[in-house]
Amino acid sequence: MLHTCSKERLEEKIKTFSRFGATANGGITRFTLSPEAIAARNEFKKRVLALGMQFKTDDMGTMYATIPGEDNQLPAILSGSHMDSVRQGGNYDGILGVLTALEAAETIVTNQITHRHPITVVVWTNEEGVRFEPGMVASGVILGKYDTSDIYPIKDKDGITFLEALEASGFLGQKENRASKENTKALIELHIEQGPILTSEKKTIGIVDGVCGMLCYKFTFYGQADHAGTTPMSYRKDAFYAAAKTLDYLHQKLDQLDDKLVYTTGEISCHPNLHTIIPDEFSFLLDARHYNPAVIQQVLDVIHTVPDMVAGCRVTYEEAWSRNTVYFDSKLVSFVDQNANAFGYSNMHIYSGAGHDAQYIAGVIPTTMIFVPSIDGRSHCEQEYTPMEDCYQGANVLLNTILNTDES
Amino acid sequence: MLHTCSKERLEEKIKTFSRFGATANGGITRFTLSPEAIAARNEFKKRVLALGMQFKTDDMGTMYATIPGEDNQLPAILSGSHMDSVRQGGNYDGILGVLTALEAAETIVTNQITHRHPITVVVWTNEEGVRFEPGMVASGVILGKYDTSDIYPIKDKDGITFLEALEASGFLGQKENRASKENTKALIELHIEQGPILTSEKKTIGIVDGVCGMLCYKFTFYGQADHAGTTPMSYRKDAFYAAAKTLDYLHQKLDQLDDKLVYTTGEISCHPNLHTIIPDEFSFLLDARHYNPAVIQQVLDVIHTVPDMVAGCRVTYEEAWSRNTVYFDSKLVSFVDQNANAFGYSNMHIYSGAGHDAQYIAGVIPTTMIFVPSIDGRSHCEQEYTPMEDCYQGANVLLNTILNTDES
Repeated sequence: MLHTCSKERLEEKIKTFSRFGATANGGITRFTLSPEAIAARNEFKKRVLALGMQFKTDDMGTMYATIPGEDNQLPAILSGSHMDSVRQGGNYDGILGVLTALEAAETIVTNQITHRHPITVVVWTNEEGVRFEPGMVASGVILGKYDTSDIYPIKDKDGITFLEALEASGFLGQKENRASKENTKALIELHIEQGPILTSEKKTIGIVDGVCGMLCYKFTFYGQADHAGTTPMSYRKDAFYAAAKTLDYLHQKLDQLDDKLVYTTGEISCHPNLHTIIPDEFSFLLDARHYNPAVIQQVLDVIHTVPDMVAGCRVTYEEAWSRNTVYFDSKLVSFVDQNANAFGYSNMHIYSGAGHDAQYIAGVIPTTMIFVPSIDGRSHCEQEYTPMEDCYQGANVLLNTILNTDES
Repeated sequence: MLHTCSKERLEEKIKTFSRFGATANGGITRFTLSPEAIAARNEFKKRVLALGMQFKTDDMGTMYATIPGEDNQLPAILSGSHMDSVRQGGNYDGILGVLTALEAAETIVTNQITHRHPITVVVWTNEEGVRFEPGMVASGVILGKYDTSDIYPIKDKDGITFLEALEASGFLGQKENRASKENTKALIELHIEQGPILTSEKKTIGIVDGVCGMLCYKFTFYGQADHAGTTPMSYRKDAFYAAAKTLDYLHQKLDQLDDKLVYTTGEISCHPNLHTIIPDEFSFLLDARHYNPAVIQQVLDVIHTVPDMVAGCRVTYEEAWSRNTVYFDSKLVSFVDQNANAFGYSNMHIYSGAGHDAQYIAGVIPTTMIFVPSIDGRSHCEQEYTPMEDCYQGANVLLNTILNTDES
């Protein structure tokens, strides 16, 4: 039997939460533990208490709001996402995963849907990592990637530490409240795709099989800093020109690999960066992502064919970081698949290219994600938009996936 | 009759002045009106007064040290350069033009060489423009390109204005002391080449015909700032990639033009410059220089063939600035040529690719320059070096060019 959420209630939630940190052009700026974020947290807390849910926070400020189950010895089923945003971000990234989970919980409470496990709406702290770098720290602490002693001293640009901000917010809780392998059965996170694939394929539900592996290599080109006016062309070693030729070479080679491979060279530096001096050092980062480790290996093989010398400049490259593909729990993925089809919602399997708290939690707790479309693939901007009908369909798939998990 | 300077005296001058602002690796850092620059000025003043020369400064702090001539109603013959340096610069750029002029004056005084015109050693203030931007301001004021009201308020990074620094130095003088069309017959500036041409052609004296014209165009590429992980390659508009392809195109086309053309793309910017975001804006400056305006026009013709769209990105370009070729005074150039050949010094005609105070003064007063080699073309660095014999030969050509000018 399929249960359905209330579209009207979900729409009201989205509209209300869009006010916390609203920008002039219809987006939001809601940095971690800022006054706007605390206002959103208080609104969330008020609503879950009104629904009779149990509210607690852990030592990273992660919020857990729980509907008790018939057997509270059973581990909880978690659903949720994050509330913080980038500067001038949109009204869907993160917060839609919180609000669809809250709407699913409200539906369960209001419709008195019986369930054995506790069902918990979770809100992770500092996913974006804009105010406090890095992001995904609350889930990272649960994974054991970080300890609170790594995160507490991190300062924002005003010199306020994460711990100071968390204590001042009133949302600092206990370590024993953290989600864990023992106390949690599953995490299901709904999120916007943040890319154009669902829109262009005309699908509403992305059944997320995992998060793409990535590698990030730093290329550096060493030239010679001679005078722009006095150095004949034949004497020059121009690091920017060497980088440009290498970028073109990489495109030629990488474009022959799998068409689901994505790669980006978005971060560059140029020294001394004066129009009168030939650049003596230029670097760029190559970020490549694919779900299939064999394709990532092919990227690495291409990297190793880059010559040591290009346009008279020495070339070096080294791994800056990498991550392996995270595969989500196959049973949870199949529930999402079944529900999308049972509702007759258009759907497709997809891998996430972006990082999410769910990928860290997946290292400890069975996890999956549900994607809904981002119109034109726009995200991390005020134009970020997901049609209400898509949000509603996502919420319905989420609700029923939670209930399937409860029954399994 | 050819007169000769003292190599020993010149060598002592170079060694002494290399101490004012000496760096650990044998270069100097001597910013305009810094304590090191003031120490060099005081040493200069002490020496010219000891030679019985008249010392004065103008309202830009430019120093003029004059040996009276037989007819002091005649306009003066100026020779000199600047004493300020870039950070961790060398012991030759600018200062060698001052010290060879001072050695020429000392030779004239010591050897009691008769001359009709006053002969003046000049030291221009703030040629490099490192402490106070822009450079070449003292000559620029004489040209009328700037007024002192433009320059006096310019602040260094500590908030000290040019005027404050000049007043505190004790070298602020009167406007009526400025070199002018009326009071000056000629300017002859010796300078290091700052490029590798004389060295590679195995010539000691560069007979400078003028300063290359240049144009500087700003290219901007407009892409779309999408997420590195979620945006398929076919959807991308990558402004850095568009810039790299265009740079390669420009090289292909411009390399077919005259082999004395030089062009540089040393100053770039990339937005938002994050490895997770496809660049939505990338720009670079194209600085192209040649003495022949027809070749500069050909560069412009190539620029106009750059497509409006490259790799899905809109391309714009506009002139940032330009300057016409400055041709030096043909009579003065011929004196340099005659003297180099009369001494039997290896020589060649050359155009300056770099800018010098002489190019501004040339707009008001008959002017020329003499180049001596920069080993390996290195300049604006601690490795900057000109062999003593080359300095000496340059000084001899300078001395006799001053005397020829006096006779003409």
